Amino acid sequence: MKKLINNAESVVAEALEGLAAAHPALRVDVEGRVVWRADAPRTGKVALVSGGGSGHEPLHAGFVGHGMLDAACPGEIFTSPVPDQVVEATRRVDGGAGVLHVIKNYTGDVMNFEMAAELCADEGVTVSSVVVDDDVAVQDSLYTAGRRGTGATLFVEKIAGALAESGATLAETTRVAGAVVARSRSFGIALTSCTVPAAGKPTFDLPETEVELGIGIHGEPGRSRLPLAPARELATVAMDAIHGDLPLAGDLLVMVNGMGGTPLIELYVAFAEVERYVRAKGARVARSLVGNYVTSLDMQGFSVTVCRLDAELTRLWDAPVQTPALRWGR
Amino acid sequence: MKKLINNAESVVAEALEGLAAAHPALRVDVEGRVVWRADAPRTGKVALVSGGGSGHEPLHAGFVGHGMLDAACPGEIFTSPVPDQVVEATRRVDGGAGVLHVIKNYTGDVMNFEMAAELCADEGVTVSSVVVDDDVAVQDSLYTAGRRGTGATLFVEKIAGALAESGATLAETTRVAGAVVARSRSFGIALTSCTVPAAGKPTFDLPETEVELGIGIHGEPGRSRLPLAPARELATVAMDAIHGDLPLAGDLLVMVNGMGGTPLIELYVAFAEVERYVRAKGARVARSLVGNYVTSLDMQGFSVTVCRLDAELTRLWDAPVQTPALRWGR
Repeated sequence: MKKLINNAESVVAEALEGLAAAHPALRVDVEGRVVWRADAPRTGKVALVSGGGSGHEPLHAGFVGHGMLDAACPGEIFTSPVPDQVVEATRRVDGGAGVLHVIKNYTGDVMNFEMAAELCADEGVTVSSVVVDDDVAVQDSLYTAGRRGTGATLFVEKIAGALAESGATLAETTRVAGAVVARSRSFGIALTSCTVPAAGKPTFDLPETEVELGIGIHGEPGRSRLPLAPARELATVAMDAIHGDLPLAGDLLVMVNGMGGTPLIELYVAFAEVERYVRAKGARVARSLVGNYVTSLDMQGFSVTVCRLDAELTRLWDAPVQTPALRWGR
Repeated sequence: MKKLINNAESVVAEALEGLAAAHPALRVDVEGRVVWRADAPRTGKVALVSGGGSGHEPLHAGFVGHGMLDAACPGEIFTSPVPDQVVEATRRVDGGAGVLHVIKNYTGDVMNFEMAAELCADEGVTVSSVVVDDDVAVQDSLYTAGRRGTGATLFVEKIAGALAESGATLAETTRVAGAVVARSRSFGIALTSCTVPAAGKPTFDLPETEVELGIGIHGEPGRSRLPLAPARELATVAMDAIHGDLPLAGDLLVMVNGMGGTPLIELYVAFAEVERYVRAKGARVARSLVGNYVTSLDMQGFSVTVCRLDAELTRLWDAPVQTPALRWGR
């Protein structure tokens, strides 16, 4: 295993030290594994808290900042954050208007966020939640009952974060988060496995001549394998799966996301194919994102996430955002 | 070779199609291989043009936009743009106040930009140039007389771009670009080779237990090899090389840059070490950038680039920028 780390046990803590040093607008409790906005809590503002296993960077800590998350709690690599972390994150950013938990649909995450929400309720903090389950690849999976949560998490965090920033109530923010989930779908394809530092070897074997269709962001098995094919074919497989589940129509927000080890030049090649596909269906890529945003350590591959926009979601997507990994406006 | 492409010959053109589809504020001549700002030429504004081989994305086309480059001309993978491309790019963005060519110090790039500048002069366009040669690893190299140009190119493009945006003259813009070069140093380390699509196999062999110190962004040999070591040691090697050449002092702009295949979590681990090193020398990381910015296809590894800031450079670094890969302010 070749990794730019000091040792497998301290990767998450040391990366958080780096995050803290690089981004003065964040506050980081390295021991407690909580990252929050320096300006939190903001009185009267609904706060957004998310979290999940590490290894998906920049998700989630890279999305903490103005117009997006108020706090994130990163677990160990591919491991849910514990309830105490979530409680601590929630406490730190609660401004009295309630806190929305954005949860990717993995059994451990859902359970630990639920426990945390109960503990927060006991302390008088109003918490609501949204569970993101956008991945159409498989129903139930290694760590999931139902669909997995992947790329749409970024859309939920950005769009609901913008609404919360504008002074909306917890009920309104929760409603919009749910609308983004309902309108979003994802599908991922792996060219290689990832390697978890503590494991020291690839999570799964994938021959040099094959790709895994419908891969999960922890290397969970997908639908099937296919001989390595041109980007056009792979993009078509991903888009057929998405379109078959939620027909492409109207204005779309489309992310072509790298799994961590795929260079940008290849992601743009894939994006060109995805955009062509969308046009052929009579829909339109109105907004887009191309890059490594919801990753799986060093895995090579990509995922596509599509959200059917409406005027409200488009306006919220366009609103200013200032986080380490997503910045525009203002 | 496992890559998310259609075929090795069309990677650059297809990635440019993707770039055009993803970024409506850019104009892209896919055939002619020129990318420029939709609002160019801007009368009376000094224009910045850069370019070089593809395979280093987001450099350079990802840095075209408000406050940075006016145009970029991407060559084939790891191949200099031809003079005609540079001429075309220069023509498209010349607003009458002159054009600055930002050139990485590779023999082919320097030669082709020089030829282009002569052709432009014949057409009455005033062109000045700056050659970036920040890589302290080696003197002369596979494609270079003198030092190679690497990460500092981004700093030059951002800082000189901000000055040009503010209405400075060509002489002023050229002077600041030169100042950034004079104050910047880089050093890179590879964990793995890159694979050029047309070659179909790794550019060089690097055993599972070794790293290459002082790697070039095309996989050119560095200074030596070392057994795979913790991030702290690798960061120290890079920083010793930089500090030995230009002592760290005062406020620094520091980039920890991924080579394309290294995930963000590892880059933050490395950044924590770099920041610690800087502090131990009595200097300060005043501004920073952590991510994949000046890459070498799918190579795993990282480089560090340091620039000694002064008040003017800091102000220009902080100025608004709106490009696909670098966005803040405004």
